[in-house]
Amino acid sequence: MNLAYKVLQAHLKEGELIPGKPICIGIDQTLTQDSTGTMAYLQLEAMDVGHVAVEKAVAYIDHNMLQTGFENMDDHEFIRSVARKHGITFSKPGNGVCHQLQLENFSKPGKTLVGSDSHTPTCGAMGMIAIGAGGLDVAVAMATGKYYLQCPSVIQVNLTGTKASWVSAKDIILKILQTLSVKGGVNKIVEYTGEGIASLSLTDRATICNMGAELGATTSIFPTDERTLEYLKQQGRAEDYVELKADEDAKYDERLDIDLSTLEPMVAKPHSPDAVVSAKELEGMHIHQVVIGSCTNSSFADMMRAAKILKGHQVADHVSLVIAPGSSSILAMLSQNGALADMIQAGARILECGCGPCIGMGQAPLSQGVSLRTINRNFKGRSGTNDASVYLVSPEIAALSAIKGYLSCEFEDDMYLDEVPSTPFIKNKNFFIDAYDPETEVYMGPNIKPVPRGENLDADIQGKVVLKVGDNISTDHIVPSDSKLLPFRSNVPHLAKFAFSKVDDQFYTRAKENHGGFIVGGDNYGQGSSREHAALVPNYLKIRAIFALSFARIHRSNLINNGILPIVIDQQGYDFFNQEDEYVLINVKESVENDQPIVVENRRTKEKLTAKLTLAPREKVMILQGGLLNAIKELGGDF
Amino acid sequence: MNLAYKVLQAHLKEGELIPGKPICIGIDQTLTQDSTGTMAYLQLEAMDVGHVAVEKAVAYIDHNMLQTGFENMDDHEFIRSVARKHGITFSKPGNGVCHQLQLENFSKPGKTLVGSDSHTPTCGAMGMIAIGAGGLDVAVAMATGKYYLQCPSVIQVNLTGTKASWVSAKDIILKILQTLSVKGGVNKIVEYTGEGIASLSLTDRATICNMGAELGATTSIFPTDERTLEYLKQQGRAEDYVELKADEDAKYDERLDIDLSTLEPMVAKPHSPDAVVSAKELEGMHIHQVVIGSCTNSSFADMMRAAKILKGHQVADHVSLVIAPGSSSILAMLSQNGALADMIQAGARILECGCGPCIGMGQAPLSQGVSLRTINRNFKGRSGTNDASVYLVSPEIAALSAIKGYLSCEFEDDMYLDEVPSTPFIKNKNFFIDAYDPETEVYMGPNIKPVPRGENLDADIQGKVVLKVGDNISTDHIVPSDSKLLPFRSNVPHLAKFAFSKVDDQFYTRAKENHGGFIVGGDNYGQGSSREHAALVPNYLKIRAIFALSFARIHRSNLINNGILPIVIDQQGYDFFNQEDEYVLINVKESVENDQPIVVENRRTKEKLTAKLTLAPREKVMILQGGLLNAIKELGGDF
Repeated sequence: MNLAYKVLQAHLKEGELIPGKPICIGIDQTLTQDSTGTMAYLQLEAMDVGHVAVEKAVAYIDHNMLQTGFENMDDHEFIRSVARKHGITFSKPGNGVCHQLQLENFSKPGKTLVGSDSHTPTCGAMGMIAIGAGGLDVAVAMATGKYYLQCPSVIQVNLTGTKASWVSAKDIILKILQTLSVKGGVNKIVEYTGEGIASLSLTDRATICNMGAELGATTSIFPTDERTLEYLKQQGRAEDYVELKADEDAKYDERLDIDLSTLEPMVAKPHSPDAVVSAKELEGMHIHQVVIGSCTNSSFADMMRAAKILKGHQVADHVSLVIAPGSSSILAMLSQNGALADMIQAGARILECGCGPCIGMGQAPLSQGVSLRTINRNFKGRSGTNDASVYLVSPEIAALSAIKGYLSCEFEDDMYLDEVPSTPFIKNKNFFIDAYDPETEVYMGPNIKPVPRGENLDADIQGKVVLKVGDNISTDHIVPSDSKLLPFRSNVPHLAKFAFSKVDDQFYTRAKENHGGFIVGGDNYGQGSSREHAALVPNYLKIRAIFALSFARIHRSNLINNGILPIVIDQQGYDFFNQEDEYVLINVKESVENDQPIVVENRRTKEKLTAKLTLAPREKVMILQGGLLNAIKELGGDF
Repeated sequence: MNLAYKVLQAHLKEGELIPGKPICIGIDQTLTQDSTGTMAYLQLEAMDVGHVAVEKAVAYIDHNMLQTGFENMDDHEFIRSVARKHGITFSKPGNGVCHQLQLENFSKPGKTLVGSDSHTPTCGAMGMIAIGAGGLDVAVAMATGKYYLQCPSVIQVNLTGTKASWVSAKDIILKILQTLSVKGGVNKIVEYTGEGIASLSLTDRATICNMGAELGATTSIFPTDERTLEYLKQQGRAEDYVELKADEDAKYDERLDIDLSTLEPMVAKPHSPDAVVSAKELEGMHIHQVVIGSCTNSSFADMMRAAKILKGHQVADHVSLVIAPGSSSILAMLSQNGALADMIQAGARILECGCGPCIGMGQAPLSQGVSLRTINRNFKGRSGTNDASVYLVSPEIAALSAIKGYLSCEFEDDMYLDEVPSTPFIKNKNFFIDAYDPETEVYMGPNIKPVPRGENLDADIQGKVVLKVGDNISTDHIVPSDSKLLPFRSNVPHLAKFAFSKVDDQFYTRAKENHGGFIVGGDNYGQGSSREHAALVPNYLKIRAIFALSFARIHRSNLINNGILPIVIDQQGYDFFNQEDEYVLINVKESVENDQPIVVENRRTKEKLTAKLTLAPREKVMILQGGLLNAIKELGGDF
């Protein structure tokens, strides 16, 4: 058995480990960050449960930390109060990035983790099954200790050889992205094997697992070994170590071999993490900004390597170099050992420990600017500047380029840090608050609005088609996300005003006037991020069904979680619908109950259409009850 | 002669040192920050000059550093290019707050400084005459080395005795604010004398001069002595020291005596810096947030004192403590000596060196939150949260209260730092860019729009009254300022869309439709900040004259600088005007030239009004030329 399946098997609650089949696994740990967390905790609150059902649940604040209005701190206080009420550890703002902190403080070999952030797989470096999920799924995991997913297949990435000095973990995952592409990991777990692993430190492995998310993978996992133990010792928790590895004769569904000794420094060009080329090809490219940090490359070792390169040098006049260490512990350690002073004296701007520039929360580059970043994603506009070009690089290339003023991988020998000092970790326990009190009154600022609830499925549904759109509508089209809207993630009524605003600026008005109705879409409806707000907002606007040629997987789940019918139509069906016409879904409740096709009638022309709605048994319950929250309330978390 | 007049006399170019009379002084140094600086440099560019005419001009970036869109970094790059073109030192973002940096690096006894920030008087601690002014006035100072002002009177504040351990410089200036009020310093220089001075370090004095701005004072000044020399030695520039003091028999216009030994810790309550009470009165008040930093209290000594209190303690669970050291040098020093690690380990969030929370650039408190801050102003809404309560306190009270979770001045003895370590300053030369090149091409991002120019005064002016308002219209009414609009300070056309939006949301549309016209106001028109955008926007909208019962002093100057006629009317005149009626100023050019009253005719009713426009000779030139920029272009900077 491979390691991934060993951990899954040990946690299996329902189903069988057959790729593509639905399974349910037991969850040991959960994490949330604040931009998805407010909604997850509103949903947890709506479930009316007591102490969380997992070994360790942590609520991090790392996204909305600029606080340009009252909304952010209100959200922080809301999360702090919910954490206290349900026995969740609260990580105060300033403590750092959730994934770095989870790795440092709570990761344990063989455990399972779900987190409401797509980079949750970072802890795969510790031999964990760590999966990113929507907020409601994480809320359910906190309430019930269970997580439902489609069983992934496992791809073996076998590492041999040893990388050269200036090749970093970032270059390994960039190489894999170049090979497999951003779709190469969908519904798969990436499991690393081979003697090449031994040369990678635990945080190197974390960088690789972190960016496995860019492959579209369910998660990534490394075995544990001496390097794992070494890391746990530095954290003062060697007792958490467990040796874990695949069986000698383990089976995998696919295999990729990588000889580390053949690798060279790599760069992902705009605007995709898999647009990877050799750094040499871009040597000399003029740059404006350099960002070192994010959950991908903000470990103590990353910072020390960058500091060594910067020491005694000067950031180029025209370059703005910003550095955000991954955790307050790392910041304190860098402060104590002089590396932070080296960075500052070179001319680096030191940002607060948090996600910051990676999610466009500050440090947007100038117009048409070129920014080198050690982060994991370089999608167009994500930096906050629509026409900027973001290149993904290792901390080493970032630091060297900041000095030179252009992209460079021509290092000098004395810039190399032979060995990262084995500094004992400074535990910043003052940033973690454990204060369980079930009597805590939950704080709700004026920007925090109740989570929208669906309605039990009626016998018939009628309404207008309030929007008809084409193919590839993304969650960004449905509910935009930027630094201006992120503070409103706990305010669905406000977000609703911007629904489909990039497609049709009258949508909100029309939906409100008609008290909801239906949406008709083309192929791949709901592609993009896992943002559940793309379903919460339609739920709030009383959209009862969406007809589309096909649905993106996660969005379809989110719609069902919200009690919205995702009905598949063909081209003829697409043509059948006219925006503004009124339709009725005849005997829809009966049809759902009996797994029959859905019959739709145009109330003006009396024409009829028959369309398909295929639901798994658990999904059917959600649709009949008007969503997952209602179902849990009615039937308990184990329905 | 008092010290203030000695320095003024040594720089006097025109006029006499008689309080209330116009004078012109020579300027040695200028500073700008980025939120006022972009406009100041657009104006400098419009003057078509070469190398600046002052000994030292510095362009700081400290306000707009969150960079949530491309606008901020575009502005930084614009300022960097202008600085290079005109021989101005560029202080990169991350270097710190302008006043702290100016003090550390460039302040010299006996010199004059004008800066486009109201807290420029900070350098009065170094025996300088340092005055805050509008951006255009600073641009003129850079171009010509001259600054025009009304000669202030001088108030002597005589300090005796020695303050108790837990009484800080902040408490001294709060005591003075309690005594004199926020209007107590208008058109005055505050000069400190007495043996009590010797017990105050240079940065203590800087705190006091900084908050002298809250008295409404033109500036504040301290003599120089051993403590001044000691500070300069630490900065590695003892050679800049000059002994300066008032004559034994110096005359002052007013006198205030303060016995430092009688003082106790003080707090300014919401929402004014002069709402000062004893800290004891508020002992135990629940708090949510604590901010240590800003140009008032972010020196090395302030930080060391706060760190000593925090060391080994834990910030209360419910409190968010943020600390922003005043300069990158201070951050590096705190890093090297372990104080930063002490702060972090106590649970403090470390922000980038800059203005940050003080100007509402981040860290807005929660709804109805209570925030203790070491900053200088606690006006309603300035924090970014309209219903928050901000209390101004010393760094010592701030740090202690953060630990306790409530406002407290009950210190423990071992929290006191007997002596601030005499650490040699770390010079961060890598943050200062000196790269004079007159051939530099100025960078203009898409958000940077040309500065609006007035037109030569026509023989007659006609137009509609596009707005008629009541008393006490402030610059905030005319052009709002918040974290959302601050990035647009170099884009007058964009700001114009928000002109008077709090008063009449149709104003912009009406002004555009009518190609400008006139505004009619009541008493105290244009009160509030020195924001010249409140005149630039009307200029851009082609407002040619404003009729009001009275004008606030600085706004009147800004209008004249922009070629807009500030015409004083009486109540009968106020009643004469109707919004939407059309009026003509008959022979207005001739009237201005000959100092005659202005004759206004209602074109519909043919009724006439005669109104007053009193202009100093230099002002008359500006009005005839259509503003200061035109006048300089036509007549040179010395007109």
